[in-house]
Amino acid sequence: MNDNPIGIFDSGVGGLTVLKEIAELLPAENILYLGDTARVPYGIRSPETVIRYSFECTEFLLRKNIKLLVVACNTVSAISLQKIREAVSIPVIGVIDPGAAAAVNVTKNKRIGIIGTEATIKSSSYVKAVKALNREIEVYGLACPLFVPLVEEGWTEGTIARLIAEKYLKDMTDKETDTIVLGCTHYPLLKGVIQEVMRDVRLVDSAIETAKAVKDALWEKRMNREAGAASERKFYVTDSTEKFVSVGERFLQQEIKNIEKIAL
Amino acid sequence: MNDNPIGIFDSGVGGLTVLKEIAELLPAENILYLGDTARVPYGIRSPETVIRYSFECTEFLLRKNIKLLVVACNTVSAISLQKIREAVSIPVIGVIDPGAAAAVNVTKNKRIGIIGTEATIKSSSYVKAVKALNREIEVYGLACPLFVPLVEEGWTEGTIARLIAEKYLKDMTDKETDTIVLGCTHYPLLKGVIQEVMRDVRLVDSAIETAKAVKDALWEKRMNREAGAASERKFYVTDSTEKFVSVGERFLQQEIKNIEKIAL
Repeated sequence: MNDNPIGIFDSGVGGLTVLKEIAELLPAENILYLGDTARVPYGIRSPETVIRYSFECTEFLLRKNIKLLVVACNTVSAISLQKIREAVSIPVIGVIDPGAAAAVNVTKNKRIGIIGTEATIKSSSYVKAVKALNREIEVYGLACPLFVPLVEEGWTEGTIARLIAEKYLKDMTDKETDTIVLGCTHYPLLKGVIQEVMRDVRLVDSAIETAKAVKDALWEKRMNREAGAASERKFYVTDSTEKFVSVGERFLQQEIKNIEKIAL
Repeated sequence: MNDNPIGIFDSGVGGLTVLKEIAELLPAENILYLGDTARVPYGIRSPETVIRYSFECTEFLLRKNIKLLVVACNTVSAISLQKIREAVSIPVIGVIDPGAAAAVNVTKNKRIGIIGTEATIKSSSYVKAVKALNREIEVYGLACPLFVPLVEEGWTEGTIARLIAEKYLKDMTDKETDTIVLGCTHYPLLKGVIQEVMRDVRLVDSAIETAKAVKDALWEKRMNREAGAASERKFYVTDSTEKFVSVGERFLQQEIKNIEKIAL
């Protein structure tokens, strides 16, 4: 048993989809969330910049005595997860390996599609993670840069969302993928429209898979909190709290209180 | 006569639409362009952050002995232009006043629309600039967050661009504006689709108006270069050069050479 909080960080609001799944699966856990909103999005930055920013986020959360770190950002998970693991002594969970493992379990025709930001796709991390589990699986990566602003605007349904999804995902239909990994933390909010466009495809939600991996890691090390304990959430952002709250509440589907602006 | 370069900075590639118009209007001028691509977009940052970043950009260009500074970023022009003017001794041209003045000249029914990023609209700077010239004019601001990624993706024509433009601009039709200012440096690339959606509206392109203001300022102070002189362009970015070049060449409609990655 360990009452210390779980620490989650992301470049912005996206990681809240991961927080939501963790909070649902592990309601007794205390959770700290850091959104580096002054420097979002990481997805368009160079690897050196992403590594530097991710270490600043990690150090901030370590000073708050977290017992486990969740890197709820695909860009950071793709680029600097291994470096963070080597630098800290607590368990570190990224969002790529859980999503990749679930996709490998789900696919029947051994053709998996990965959608995400340009940086995530360019890094080929999902491809590597899938191939490490099963070399015979074909993996196709596809960057969908308009999905993030679409979600932040709240246009997650309707004709515009559907046409944009169709335009991006045509490629995946051509490749005959039977499984698609939502490789960006914003994308679970587009699950409906993506499923509409790709009716016969199984969607893997990295946020849900990451929450399962967090639960496994805590239980394995007996670091979970007692079930039924009252839990706390605290949010930190590096830019103004206003927009984070308004967009973030749509991600969490609940009120965001207890939020503080900090400097990294 | 003054052979020193004109310095232009923006948070990213957008300011290249301003560079393009300046280079066309003043082909003999040497131009330095700084895109703070490691920290783009400024439009989602807090005012304090925008001010700090803009001073770092200004100081970098001043060290290169520029004779005139163009703040080719609506967010910075809206938030910290006055502060930069007070801090430096060379002429400083922003993108808001020229666009506002042109709109005031063009409107007949005295109803002007301004479209831009959230930060630009929130700052009400265009409203203030228009009202300073004519208090009787009604000004309506509208944020269009999807326009920037649409332009960067290159989807500036077709159904998706048209539907997004229709969705955003419906508001402007309801307000019966006869003039719309493209209050973001990315938007000139969407001029075609915006005009298609708003057939009877006059569009004011801030990039073109800013270039005219630069010309006026140079001639007034006799700081222009001799016509016909061979000129140089140099580009600086704070993140990797690769994406800047590929997207930027679409903005400039010519090759980008002579580019260097720097730290601010």
